Amino acid sequence: MTIPSHVIEMLQKVRARFQPDRLKQRMLPSDEQFTTLRPVRKASAASVARYWERLQPTASPQDRDVLADPITMADPDRYSPNIENFIGTVKMPVGIIGPLRINGLNAHGDYHVPMATTEAALVASYARGAHAATKSGGISTALLYEGVIRTPAFVFDSLLDAGMFVEWVVREIESLKAAAESTTSHGKLVSVEPMVDNNVVFLICRYTTGDAAGQNMVTIATHALCEDIAARCSVPIKAWYIEGNFSGDKKASFLGLVTGRGRKVSASVTLPAQVVERTLGTTVQAMLDYGQVANLGSHLSGQLGAQAHFANGLAAFYIATGQDAACVAESAMGITRMEARGDALFCSVTMPNILVGSVGGGTSLPSQSAGLNILGLKGAGNGAALAEVAAATCLCGEISIVAAIAAGHFTRAHENLARHR
Amino acid sequence: MTIPSHVIEMLQKVRARFQPDRLKQRMLPSDEQFTTLRPVRKASAASVARYWERLQPTASPQDRDVLADPITMADPDRYSPNIENFIGTVKMPVGIIGPLRINGLNAHGDYHVPMATTEAALVASYARGAHAATKSGGISTALLYEGVIRTPAFVFDSLLDAGMFVEWVVREIESLKAAAESTTSHGKLVSVEPMVDNNVVFLICRYTTGDAAGQNMVTIATHALCEDIAARCSVPIKAWYIEGNFSGDKKASFLGLVTGRGRKVSASVTLPAQVVERTLGTTVQAMLDYGQVANLGSHLSGQLGAQAHFANGLAAFYIATGQDAACVAESAMGITRMEARGDALFCSVTMPNILVGSVGGGTSLPSQSAGLNILGLKGAGNGAALAEVAAATCLCGEISIVAAIAAGHFTRAHENLARHR
Amino acid sequence: MTIPSHVIEMLQKVRARFQPDRLKQRMLPSDEQFTTLRPVRKASAASVARYWERLQPTASPQDRDVLADPITMADPDRYSPNIENFIGTVKMPVGIIGPLRINGLNAHGDYHVPMATTEAALVASYARGAHAATKSGGISTALLYEGVIRTPAFVFDSLLDAGMFVEWVVREIESLKAAAESTTSHGKLVSVEPMVDNNVVFLICRYTTGDAAGQNMVTIATHALCEDIAARCSVPIKAWYIEGNFSGDKKASFLGLVTGRGRKVSASVTLPAQVVERTLGTTVQAMLDYGQVANLGSHLSGQLGAQAHFANGLAAFYIATGQDAACVAESAMGITRMEARGDALFCSVTMPNILVGSVGGGTSLPSQSAGLNILGLKGAGNGAALAEVAAATCLCGEISIVAAIAAGHFTRAHENLARHR
Amino acid sequence: MTIPSHVIEMLQKVRARFQPDRLKQRMLPSDEQFTTLRPVRKASAASVARYWERLQPTASPQDRDVLADPITMADPDRYSPNIENFIGTVKMPVGIIGPLRINGLNAHGDYHVPMATTEAALVASYARGAHAATKSGGISTALLYEGVIRTPAFVFDSLLDAGMFVEWVVREIESLKAAAESTTSHGKLVSVEPMVDNNVVFLICRYTTGDAAGQNMVTIATHALCEDIAARCSVPIKAWYIEGNFSGDKKASFLGLVTGRGRKVSASVTLPAQVVERTLGTTVQAMLDYGQVANLGSHLSGQLGAQAHFANGLAAFYIATGQDAACVAESAMGITRMEARGDALFCSVTMPNILVGSVGGGTSLPSQSAGLNILGLKGAGNGAALAEVAAATCLCGEISIVAAIAAGHFTRAHENLARHR
Repeated sequence: MTIPSHVIEMLQKVRARFQPDRLKQRMLPSDEQFTTLRPVRKASAASVARYWERLQPTASPQDRDVLADPITMADPDRYSPNIENFIGTVKMPVGIIGPLRINGLNAHGDYHVPMATTEAALVASYARGAHAATKSGGISTALLYEGVIRTPAFVFDSLLDAGMFVEWVVREIESLKAAAESTTSHGKLVSVEPMVDNNVVFLICRYTTGDAAGQNMVTIATHALCEDIAARCSVPIKAWYIEGNFSGDKKASFLGLVTGRGRKVSASVTLPAQVVERTLGTTVQAMLDYGQVANLGSHLSGQLGAQAHFANGLAAFYIATGQDAACVAESAMGITRMEARGDALFCSVTMPNILVGSVGGGTSLPSQSAGLNILGLKGAGNGAALAEVAAATCLCGEISIVAAIAAGHFTRAHENLARHR
Repeated sequence: MTIPSHVIEMLQKVRARFQPDRLKQRMLPSDEQFTTLRPVRKASAASVARYWERLQPTASPQDRDVLADPITMADPDRYSPNIENFIGTVKMPVGIIGPLRINGLNAHGDYHVPMATTEAALVASYARGAHAATKSGGISTALLYEGVIRTPAFVFDSLLDAGMFVEWVVREIESLKAAAESTTSHGKLVSVEPMVDNNVVFLICRYTTGDAAGQNMVTIATHALCEDIAARCSVPIKAWYIEGNFSGDKKASFLGLVTGRGRKVSASVTLPAQVVERTLGTTVQAMLDYGQVANLGSHLSGQLGAQAHFANGLAAFYIATGQDAACVAESAMGITRMEARGDALFCSVTMPNILVGSVGGGTSLPSQSAGLNILGLKGAGNGAALAEVAAATCLCGEISIVAAIAAGHFTRAHENLARHR
Repeated sequence: MTIPSHVIEMLQKVRARFQPDRLKQRMLPSDEQFTTLRPVRKASAASVARYWERLQPTASPQDRDVLADPITMADPDRYSPNIENFIGTVKMPVGIIGPLRINGLNAHGDYHVPMATTEAALVASYARGAHAATKSGGISTALLYEGVIRTPAFVFDSLLDAGMFVEWVVREIESLKAAAESTTSHGKLVSVEPMVDNNVVFLICRYTTGDAAGQNMVTIATHALCEDIAARCSVPIKAWYIEGNFSGDKKASFLGLVTGRGRKVSASVTLPAQVVERTLGTTVQAMLDYGQVANLGSHLSGQLGAQAHFANGLAAFYIATGQDAACVAESAMGITRMEARGDALFCSVTMPNILVGSVGGGTSLPSQSAGLNILGLKGAGNGAALAEVAAATCLCGEISIVAAIAAGHFTRAHENLARHR
Repeated sequence: MTIPSHVIEMLQKVRARFQPDRLKQRMLPSDEQFTTLRPVRKASAASVARYWERLQPTASPQDRDVLADPITMADPDRYSPNIENFIGTVKMPVGIIGPLRINGLNAHGDYHVPMATTEAALVASYARGAHAATKSGGISTALLYEGVIRTPAFVFDSLLDAGMFVEWVVREIESLKAAAESTTSHGKLVSVEPMVDNNVVFLICRYTTGDAAGQNMVTIATHALCEDIAARCSVPIKAWYIEGNFSGDKKASFLGLVTGRGRKVSASVTLPAQVVERTLGTTVQAMLDYGQVANLGSHLSGQLGAQAHFANGLAAFYIATGQDAACVAESAMGITRMEARGDALFCSVTMPNILVGSVGGGTSLPSQSAGLNILGLKGAGNGAALAEVAAATCLCGEISIVAAIAAGHFTRAHENLARHR
């Protein structure tokens, strides 16, 4: 059979449902009338009610009541700085793990980590990893690098103009830095690196952003920098864009893996053989053996780095603490290592792109703020520690899943914990 | 200066805070006593209260009350199938966009799409894209492929044994398929492809999963398949693992981009010039010009595919409809294209890895279920349509952000909408 | 310093040499007269002499004599099937290694492998690896997969037409296969897999190519397939292209790593501790320790797979045996593994994209033919064995370089062997 | 059918040839006696003769005579600085293209470019591209960056030690630079960037290498730097390696694409519509249309950058001018762009990793030296110009192949030119 079976199967499914002629009609544009929802920036009981009226054809009053519940509706406007067209809140269950002992450059102490997820077995698995890590004396962590980037692009007529532009930028760098930093009290422009592709120049603008995740901060600062360039640059600019789709914002990229974006953290722990056996139910050798296969799998499938499931820990941590859940796309990459140290097992994660803030974003919303308070890391001064806790949490997840797969328990754990559904 | 500035700066920060000797002590393992939280699988008022007592050193009663609010605590056990160690719910604000007209193979009609996020400007931007798309007659969509994969790994003594194993699997494929499918009423094993690296064989097991996202389903089915192999295979197996870290589960990978994982959907719309001008405030040419630069940026930064911010739309959609937010890591990749069609602008997204279900996972929880009801896509028969809505929503986001950057409005939109913070 | 030092340094170099105004003039297009070389497809003494006259401004008669030497000029036309605009031959030195014992599915026996290179230490290093492998009983090899691909692209008006096209292709596959295979006596169309991105369809056409590398063979066959489609297909095709830049021809790509292109071969050997110590001058543990670091480096630098220097062995082997040296770009990827087996060291390579033929291409030229004869692998029936020898040779190189770096001898070997320059 | 057809076919082939038992025997190690070739570093008539005697079982006297021909054997020792175990020379045919007009920062004038290949149609295709470019006024080029890297790795006991090590390196950077540069008169250590993965530190050591490609130069310099560290560093080092498999030496990597390795060059030309039509036989619009599809193909297949066949031009250029052909693996990546400029077609290539030297390596061998002389770029002062010629040559190849595929001529050209075989 020359055609792969999945192609044939999909075609059969479609054919079973539609006549070719019907299909055409079904997929063509339609100019039927419609009324767009009126945009709402400042939510009120009235605006929420109006929206739900519009949603009645599909949604029931019960649906409305669970999203626009009385507590949420007590003050809908509190959500206005974070969302438009507000209709209520979705309730994501939160579980807790810990204490997770962290001996870090920034985070230091025994933490209880809130994790928001709807996936059974996730919290239990991270809790098990945290238990093993803490029993082993805790996780060492260090923030290695900070640097949120924006990468505006400038288009010129020619390669020569692009070169002249780079020269101009280098000459004017101090004023440009001043322009950028004039927009923010916390952001610092750390470096500007030009990247030339013939007549297009990307400027990799790297900032430290204090305790905020800082994505808006660097956008605004870079916009000011670009406007200063546009106003004063002697080389004719054909066009410029605040972002050349180069920074890796909201997506996995090798640039992010290689150079780091956000906060880069490394975390490690050495698990004694006895902890592996008693807490994790397997052996150091079994985990190492699986580690070799898992590493091979990461290469052959073309991952960015090699790890098991950073995304699970990060998504749960980001949501529970008011971070931007979409940043999971760029944060969930890096390296997990497991190596023998005598009879014990050395385990580490190095994560180049943790995007977290202890201020800004969703951190001020009531339940997200509570998540940060559980950690004791709300507000100024805690951004670096928060990133270290995120990495340490991911390390717990790596330890637990590797142990479960090595021991053959992975499937059973999922079967049991999702059993009630 | 031979050492990059960011390295020097980071060292200075650390030096300013710590004496080298203090650092050592701070980062060493500690054997101080600790008491691990008692695991809770079945949440109750009592179990939640016990946890909060333990969290008192950092969290306040107010924090407890916003997570463990009265509505949540009316029936904490309803969350037990989805989480362990439950302490309450985090409330993520939901905004609504629409109507989004979809002329799809599976989705068909005018949809209102709920999006959960804490990032200002996101919902407004997607709403604007939806408005432009619907004014243009709506978005054509098609589910092109389905196939959640698990990739168990088998380790042998030698390359020869690996080859013998492949032969055995091929010979026994019908029984193995029966073993896998005996565990599920909805999952079908579509193909098994062996991938050999000397003495290690990965089996790429591909399933259709009905209307569920299906990640647990395929784990359980594949486990049964593996156990059947382990019980009967005549070639000596040194070790086997339910997952060889090859499937791309919870992470971006080129395997996923190339072969698809989950549901692959393509969506497109052609925007007339006048819609681009009036609704999006820019021109077709300006969007095309930026598109060229954005494409260049995607190549130079080493993305998987080329797109702007699928992750924003996906994370908001997944959270609002009870999907697994961690899957954003693997779903947020693919291709966005913009091309001239006469005076109009053709825009498309093709997304190889949408992981959604209209049943299972978090879809039964009250507020997530409401999200699906708003779409009219809760329950059996709606998995494919749900994937098409996800892709169409992402296309709206791509249109809007490209227009905003092309027009130079991107920064201002973020400044204005996040202004209250 | 906000601007990286390398940028500043490069600018200073340029400034030191040019005034900005001079630069502009220097880099502008020039319409000065010129006379293009007359194309020559059939080389003769006269055509070669004519070319050298044209090259006189820069090249000397001595230069002419070493390229257009008497032996070459005895029959310049023998090169005409392989090159246009012929001016002579470049002489690349060839070294020999062996015997390399191969216990393979296809290659079997003790081989002497010719390697053409100008890089000192390369042959010596591969020879050392071959010695270690042969002393250990030889290298097991297996051809795992064959399948040169061409990926024509078809452009349609819409996603719906693209879908209809796929359906048409599936229905017509047998005739299309016949059309493709009518052009070749050795090529077989093994599979056709459609890959849809909205209105564009790539057809992944996979062939076995007998004993040839087969790149021209599959181009011609696929062209016939496409013309058959263009002539008969009922769905309107806007444009089609023989290659959609998707196949990975002449470039590294993850598609090639994941699915294989050309011939996929795995090769392995287990080196006893004593061989590692006596022949390689290091220890099994030292090689394993370095292997962990090298694996980490491969992840962090974003390689496709993980290996040390396949390219060295492949380039030298390809050139010495009349293969296409440009294919090194796509062939030089894959996986090298080193693992403990008791006290011994298991070493393997798996290479998904070896492009070699024992017939066709440059294999009939006199000196290249001699290279194949040294191996005893010239002509029909030897394509698979040739691929296995290529992989086994690369494995020797991996063993030797890992040992050299682990032992700290790498630099010295290069210093000593390049000493005469 | 659940198992892909190619798997079944391969199994059938193997089964048809071997009984399972025979296979086992065939693939096991064998301890049969063997005699390794005696290594030869200094070639002589006698050493070559001795080798050929050993090769007699497979190779004929005629084979010997074409490799060890009288001209080669007039002075076999001249090859000794470039190869070990010398047995003769392989003769690769060389074709010439030009004049190729280059208006470059470094290269400037009308060049004839020698290209060594055995692939029919290659030289003709590049010649056509050169003709189009020169008719359009020539190609603008600029060397944008230089920086060959070595990336030694240092292993420590802990993350803390790794951090302490970084601090020590930063403090000692001037002495370390002196140690590195003491080994070379041309190499300059431009930057040292530490890359930390928990307890492992890679030092990205970047050098300019004068007119040499410089790979040995940077190895020797970095070795000295490492030995200086090992001798003086106060932090205990567990192990160090001259190369952590991080630099991208001899392999494609995203690090190379993002940061550049070797010389980074951009080259561009704008082709008037009439040149596209008359010289290339197609239209600007047809080339742009194909360009969109080719760009899509590059994304979907997971290439590093986007280009058509840099490897063809580079391999032919490297071999003809005495460069390291294995470096094609790392050089053959980057970006080709084609865009409308009014009625004309803007074409550019940007290649981050060109590894060429006008001195060192194989450049002193007689026929390779002649290749450089044809260009007028042999010896000191020409490294940068050589890199620009390499990029301009690749641009010619991109123009020609895109035109051929857009026009539907690609297959015919290959059929016609390889017709004699």
